[in-house]
Amino acid sequence: MPCKVVLAAEVASNYTAEIKSEVSQKETKPRLVGFLANDDIYAEKYAQSSSKHLAEAGLEFELRQVPRESLEAAIREANADDRVSGILVYYPVYGDDRDQKLQDLVDPTKDVEGLNVVYNGKLYGNDRFLDEEKTRKAILPCTPLAVVKVLDHIGVYNHSLPYGDHLRGKTIAVVNRSEVVGRPLAALLANDGAKVYSIDINDIQIYERDPTASINSHTATKTELKPEDVIPLCDVVITGVPTAAYKMPTSLLKPGVVAVNFASVRNFEPEVKDVASIYVPSVGKVTVSMLQRNLLRLFNYQH
Amino acid sequence: MPCKVVLAAEVASNYTAEIKSEVSQKETKPRLVGFLANDDIYAEKYAQSSSKHLAEAGLEFELRQVPRESLEAAIREANADDRVSGILVYYPVYGDDRDQKLQDLVDPTKDVEGLNVVYNGKLYGNDRFLDEEKTRKAILPCTPLAVVKVLDHIGVYNHSLPYGDHLRGKTIAVVNRSEVVGRPLAALLANDGAKVYSIDINDIQIYERDPTASINSHTATKTELKPEDVIPLCDVVITGVPTAAYKMPTSLLKPGVVAVNFASVRNFEPEVKDVASIYVPSVGKVTVSMLQRNLLRLFNYQH
Repeated sequence: MPCKVVLAAEVASNYTAEIKSEVSQKETKPRLVGFLANDDIYAEKYAQSSSKHLAEAGLEFELRQVPRESLEAAIREANADDRVSGILVYYPVYGDDRDQKLQDLVDPTKDVEGLNVVYNGKLYGNDRFLDEEKTRKAILPCTPLAVVKVLDHIGVYNHSLPYGDHLRGKTIAVVNRSEVVGRPLAALLANDGAKVYSIDINDIQIYERDPTASINSHTATKTELKPEDVIPLCDVVITGVPTAAYKMPTSLLKPGVVAVNFASVRNFEPEVKDVASIYVPSVGKVTVSMLQRNLLRLFNYQH
Repeated sequence: MPCKVVLAAEVASNYTAEIKSEVSQKETKPRLVGFLANDDIYAEKYAQSSSKHLAEAGLEFELRQVPRESLEAAIREANADDRVSGILVYYPVYGDDRDQKLQDLVDPTKDVEGLNVVYNGKLYGNDRFLDEEKTRKAILPCTPLAVVKVLDHIGVYNHSLPYGDHLRGKTIAVVNRSEVVGRPLAALLANDGAKVYSIDINDIQIYERDPTASINSHTATKTELKPEDVIPLCDVVITGVPTAAYKMPTSLLKPGVVAVNFASVRNFEPEVKDVASIYVPSVGKVTVSMLQRNLLRLFNYQH
C-alpha cells in the first residue's frame, strides 16, 4: 500500500492561476511592503521567495529593511500610505511580547498575515466575517490557512457535512503551539469540528468545540497526556517543530494516518511513508499562495 | 452540533434518473424474474416493493412463486430463457447450505444479486472485472453495494487517494457477518483499504489488507476482542442485525461517528443523533437502485 506524497506545489497550483487572472485585470496592482528588521537567515530567504512569487502572480513587492527601533514608525507610515495595499513583518523581531504589539500596530485593512488583535479575536471566536452582512471574510494567518487548504485538497474535510462542521469526527494532532501558527491552526481545526490535540514541549491541550456551550467556538483543556497516549488515536498528525533534531516517532502513528509537516525542516522520519496514507512534506508554496490571496482580498476591500 | 440524518431516498435519487433515462432508450426492456419459494413475510414485502420500483424505472418484473422443491428446475428454465434478463431468488429458501447451491445455480450472466460462486470469488479476491481488458465490471451484491454507495455519498470515501485505497486509514465496524450482506460488505470495505471489525454474536474478526502480501485482497483474523474494545475506535459503525431487540449502545460510539443501519429494524438508539455526525437509518431504497443497476448492466452485457 504505497503512501501518496502530495507536494505543496500541486495544492498551490489551484490558486495561482485564479489569482494571476484576477490581478491581470487590475489597472493598479496590489502592493505588499515587507519589513525586515532582524538578521534571521530564514526570514531573508522567505522575503526573497515572497518577492519572486508575488511577482509571478503580477503582485508588487517591496522589501524595507529598517532597524527594529524604527519599525513602529515605519509601520505607521505604511499604514497611512495609499500606495501600500498590504503590510508584512518578518518575525521574530524582538522574539518576545513586543512582537505582539507590532502585530497589533499593523492596520487590519492592510494585515496580510491576519495576526492583529481584530483578526485574532475573529479566529479564536469562530467569527468568520468582518461585517454583519457576511460579505467580507476575516483574514486568516497564511500558514495555518495553508494547512487548512492542504487538508481540504487531500480529502480530510468532509463537504457532505454542514459548513463549519467539515472536520467533525476527526482526531488531529498539531505539534507546535506558537501564537503565529500552531495555536491558530489548532483553533481553526477545532472550529471546524475536529478534536485537536495541541502538543508542545510543555504539555498537551485538547482543543474542541463544546457541544453544551451556547457559543460556537472551541474550548482548550490542559491534560496530563503524553504524545504516546494521543498520537496513535489521530487520523491526521501535523508537525511544525523548527528544529531538525525533532522527529515524530513513526511507531506512534496509526496506520493510514495523514501526515503533514509545515516546519522548514522535516519532522517526520523517512519511514512515515510505510505507515501514512498521505504525506505532505511541506506547505511553503501554499503559504505563499495564501499570502497572495490575502493581499488581493485586502486590496479588493480597500477599493 | 446537530447530527446530519441522510435518508436512503436522497442517495437513491442520484441513480434513479440515470437508470430511467437509459432504460427509456431501449426497445426491449430488461426483465427480472423473482423466485419466491417461502412464506417469509419480509421476502414478500420486498418482492412487492421490487416490482413497484422496477416498474418506476421502466424495468419489467415478474414474480414466480414455486414450491421450493421445484426451484432448481425453475431456475434452470429461467437461465435458458432469452426473455429473462435477470434472476433473483428471495432467501432464505432452506436457510442452510442448500441456499448456497441455489445461488450458484443462477447463471452468472443473469445473477442480479451477485451471489454466485463466480462473483463471490471476484469479490473476496478483490478482482473487480470480468474480463482481462477491464471493460466489464463484476456484479456486486445489492445491499453491500448500497452501503458502499451510501458511504461514498456521505463523504467517507476519500477520492484524493488512489482507486482501491479510498478508505485507507478508516476504521469501520460491520455488525452482521451473514454470507449475503455482512461478510461481503466487510470484504468490500477492507479491499478499499479500511480496517474492518466484522462483528457477530460469536466473535469479532479483523478484515484488512495485508501490506506484506503479494495479492491485493484482504485477510480475516479472529480475535478475542469485545464490542466495547473496538466500537469506540471506529470512525464508521454499520449495523444489520435483523432483530428489534438488538441495539448498538450509544455510549460506545466515538463522538462524530458515522452511523449506518442496513437492517429493516432500527439497530441504533434514538440518542445516536446526540453523538453521530451523520446517521443513515436505512439503505433499502439504495438497495433497490443497485438491483436496477445490476439488472441493466447484465442486460447490456447480454446484448
